[in-house]
This record gives sequence, structure tokens and C-alpha cells, in this order.
Amino acid sequence: MLIYIYLIAITAEAMSGALAAGRRNMDMFGVAMIAFITALGGGTVRDMLLGNFPVGWTQHPSYIYLTIGAGLFTMLVARFMHHLYKVFLILDAMGLIAFTVIGCNVALQLDYSPPVIVMAGMITGIFGGILRDILCQRVPVVLRHELYASVSMLVAMLYLTLHDMGVDQDITLLASFGFGLALRLAAIRWSWSLPVFSYQPGRWE
Amino acid sequence: MLIYIYLIAITAEAMSGALAAGRRNMDMFGVAMIAFITALGGGTVRDMLLGNFPVGWTQHPSYIYLTIGAGLFTMLVARFMHHLYKVFLILDAMGLIAFTVIGCNVALQLDYSPPVIVMAGMITGIFGGILRDILCQRVPVVLRHELYASVSMLVAMLYLTLHDMGVDQDITLLASFGFGLALRLAAIRWSWSLPVFSYQPGRWE
Amino acid sequence: MLIYIYLIAITAEAMSGALAAGRRNMDMFGVAMIAFITALGGGTVRDMLLGNFPVGWTQHPSYIYLTIGAGLFTMLVARFMHHLYKVFLILDAMGLIAFTVIGCNVALQLDYSPPVIVMAGMITGIFGGILRDILCQRVPVVLRHELYASVSMLVAMLYLTLHDMGVDQDITLLASFGFGLALRLAAIRWSWSLPVFSYQPGRWE
Repeated sequence: MLIYIYLIAITAEAMSGALAAGRRNMDMFGVAMIAFITALGGGTVRDMLLGNFPVGWTQHPSYIYLTIGAGLFTMLVARFMHHLYKVFLILDAMGLIAFTVIGCNVALQLDYSPPVIVMAGMITGIFGGILRDILCQRVPVVLRHELYASVSMLVAMLYLTLHDMGVDQDITLLASFGFGLALRLAAIRWSWSLPVFSYQPGRWE
Repeated sequence: MLIYIYLIAITAEAMSGALAAGRRNMDMFGVAMIAFITALGGGTVRDMLLGNFPVGWTQHPSYIYLTIGAGLFTMLVARFMHHLYKVFLILDAMGLIAFTVIGCNVALQLDYSPPVIVMAGMITGIFGGILRDILCQRVPVVLRHELYASVSMLVAMLYLTLHDMGVDQDITLLASFGFGLALRLAAIRWSWSLPVFSYQPGRWE
Repeated sequence: MLIYIYLIAITAEAMSGALAAGRRNMDMFGVAMIAFITALGGGTVRDMLLGNFPVGWTQHPSYIYLTIGAGLFTMLVARFMHHLYKVFLILDAMGLIAFTVIGCNVALQLDYSPPVIVMAGMITGIFGGILRDILCQRVPVVLRHELYASVSMLVAMLYLTLHDMGVDQDITLLASFGFGLALRLAAIRWSWSLPVFSYQPGRWE
């Protein structure tokens, strides 16, 4: 089941990347590349960081075609996408959780310690979006507001805890998705956010 | 022959990096570093991504000196470089093709699949420039306009096809350079470009 | 002794990252992440580049907690930190030198050649700050002015020379710190800087 959610997730992420590229008036090639990096960049950074070679997507060429295809398709349907606003938010939330769980699994199999496993989950979840924002010259949106990265962190912690307690894998997955989706959608619905740190530079910077 | 073109290519790329650094008023050190990263960053990202350690330039210290030297030299001759405008464009095009072919070769030797080989060629060809633009705070120019990255992609595909057909290596190289140079220079001459995607964000972003 | 200086160094770097995040009005999560990346990003890039897996901090979860803790702590005390201006500059200079020496050691143990060892020291010393500046949308400050990266380079060269001459490790460390601190503080005191390269783009860019 996780693989289907993953395929939906990389498609949704690729589309979000394509829209960001469109805001910067990129050409077809730029759109395809930002779509690819947004969708698969988080897992790539995780694999490179953990020394987990070969990197995931290099063994699955279909992921390359899927994300590039989704990016180019977005060029055609972008004008209608605001009608799908809410669907998109739910797909994006599911993608965040799927990425997080998959990232935790990779680090688990490589026998990393719990804090590194949680970070591997978070990196998989949020780094695609961070790379997208760097390439599109924006301060990464996940670092600025909204309960997004925090959802990834809490899902990773919950997943790891249930896993260590020996809970059945299906129940663990279901609990992670249920909790993560509820938290993320509640955060959007009621605009939950973390305290912001505003610092005015003094003479010494 | 490829090695000589490669040395010319990293020199040309280092100079383009130095000019970008000069536009941001960087100091000598920044110029040297941007020159180095522009010239050798694409190959570095490729090697780190493919798990191909040790990374190429770490085994060839002369490449470090050459690119840093070219960057610093550019500080002295920058005011005269617009006279060399056309020479520079041709060197840059040859560099793009040499980088692409070398990137394909590395992935071929590591037994990656065709789409990954093409991507390895493209990453080698364009990622140095992308890193240069990120460090100089520009939206990467290859993602925005011009047939540049696309030339790299088509050259990689041609090279891989001829290689798989068992065509003689020299002919394959000659065909790749002939086709790539012609396409790139034609794209510059007649301002060929890909369709641009312009997206105005609605309320939901 | 180096380990204590290292712990002070990553704390100081994490705090500098948190202040940069505060200037961009990031939330708690962004502050923690920028603090972490500023402190440990240089070593991470070095290890990924040299193929030195597992990456350092993944084997020391306490570094994760320390840097994130220092980042969040900075949110509380930021308003008082200008009183500690000079202390902070000294800690930062010590951090730069400690990072440089540690980076050289890692490359030495992996049998890289001298120019790569010097670059490994510099990358460890300055890349955390470069990643911080990319994520906070600034042209990296080390590339623009001040004798900062150059101090790292000279310290790395001195360290490597003394090491190759077989000088006692304690004396080598002491000499590196003495020289580096003196040079860095003199550069701040008398505003030493390198020549700047300003280039106005012509029609051909």
C-alpha cells in the first residue's frame, strides 16, 4: 500500500514544484527539472547523507518519467488547479507522511540511532521542498511558518516508537497516517503555527 | 583528445564563474571559490550522487590549481573579455558537450540504466552553473531560458545511442560534438528557446 | 582538548545560525534547523564529498541535541547578545580554526593529497556558514569580504606543514590556534580584506 501512496506523493510534489517554477517563468526544461528535484530531492539528499548507494530513484527509471511527466502536465492544467485546492492539500499531506515513513525505514535498515532515524524521515519529507525553494530563490517556506516540518518530526517519532514496541507494521502505518493527516489538516484548518523568532541586527553584524 | 577539451572546458567554466562572482563584488577568495565550483561542481554532484568515490578532482590536484588560477586570471583580463565574446561562447558550448560525454561515461562504467546515464551527463553539464547561480543569488539561468540544458540532454541521448549500437568511440565522439556544437550555436544564433511556463499564484498559495 | 573546543565551536556556530534565521523571521523549527545546519553542515559536506561514511554527527546524537538546543536558547537571549559581541567573535574564530584542523585530520586519515586536505579543512570551516546564507537568501558572507576563509586556508596549510614535518601534535595544534586566532583577530581589528573584483556585465551576458 505504501508504494501506491508514494507514487501519488511524488506526483503531487512534482506538481507543486512545477507551479513554483511557473511563478519564476521558467521554461519547459526548468519546470521538468524542478518537478523532478522537488519530488525526489528529499530522498536523494537522505541517501547521499546516509551513504545509501545506489540512490533510490536511480534504480527506478519510472520515477524519473513520472515526476517529469507530472511537471509538464501541470503546465497544461495549471489554470484549473485552484479548483482542486483542497484535494491538493490532502495529497500533499499524505505525501509528507509517506516520505517521512519511507525515510525512517531506510535509516532503520542501515542501523542508525533513533535521532538519526527521525532526521532521515524529516529530510525525506521536507528537503525536496527546500531544494525547490532554493532553486526558485525563496526563503524555504517550511522554515518560516506553518506546522509542516513539525508534523514530519512527530510522525517520525510516532512511527519509530510503535516500531520499537513491536506493533504490527500495518497498524503502525495506519496510526502514523491517521495521526499525521489529522494533525496537518487541523494545522491548516485552524492556522496553527510555531512561535516566530524576529531578530533585528545590531551594530555587531 | 577528450582530456584536452575537458581542460579547456573547465578553464572556460571557471572564467564564467569568476565573472558571475565579479558581478556580486566578491573578493579574490570568493572569485577563486566560485570559479572552482562552477568548473568542477557538476562532476562533484554527479560523483556524490552515483556513489562514485573518490570524487574526480580529488585525484587530480592540477584541476584545483587550473580552475582557481583561471578564476584569478579573469580578474585581470575581465575588461578585455567582451572582445572575446564569440570565442567564449564556443568554448562554453564545447565545455557543455565535453562535460556531458564525460558524465555519461562515468555512469556507463558504473552500470547504471540509460535514463540515469543521460541524467548523469546532464548533471555534469549543467550543475556547475546551477551551483554558481545559487551562490551568486540568481535564479539558475539554465532553468529559465535558452537551449542549453536541452542540448546537454540531446547530446547525452545521441552519445548513448551510438555507444549502444557499437559505433566506434572516435566517431561517436565526433558525432556528439558535431551535433551538439551545431545545435547550441544555432540556438544562440536564432535565439531558439523552449516554451515558458508563467504561473500567477492564486489565493491558495 | 580539541573536542572541548569543538563543542564550544558548534555551539557558537549554531547561535550564529539562529540569529541569521531570526533576521528572516523564521519559526522555532526553522531556527533549530538553521542552527543545526550552520554548526554541522560543513563537516557533513566534507564527509559526503570525501566518501567518509557514516557522516560524523550521525554517530554522535548529542551533537544534534546540542546544536538544536543552542539555537532555541538563542531565541531567548538574543536581545542580550550584543553585550557579548567580543566574546562571540573570539568563539567564532576558535570555531573556525577547530573546524579547519578537524577537517584536515579527516582527509589525512583517508590518505588524500595535500591540496585536498587543505580544501577539506576549509570546507569544514566555512561551508556551514555558506549553507546558512543560502537558506537565508544572502550572498554568502565569506565569499564577499573579510579575512575569514583565507584564515581557514592558511591554518590548514600551517597545520599540514607541521604535521608533515613530524612536529609533536600538541605543539602543532597550539601553533595553529595561536597563528589562526592572531590573524583572524588582527583582520577584524584593522579591517584587513582582500581585493574585491567588481565586474559590470556588458552586452554579452
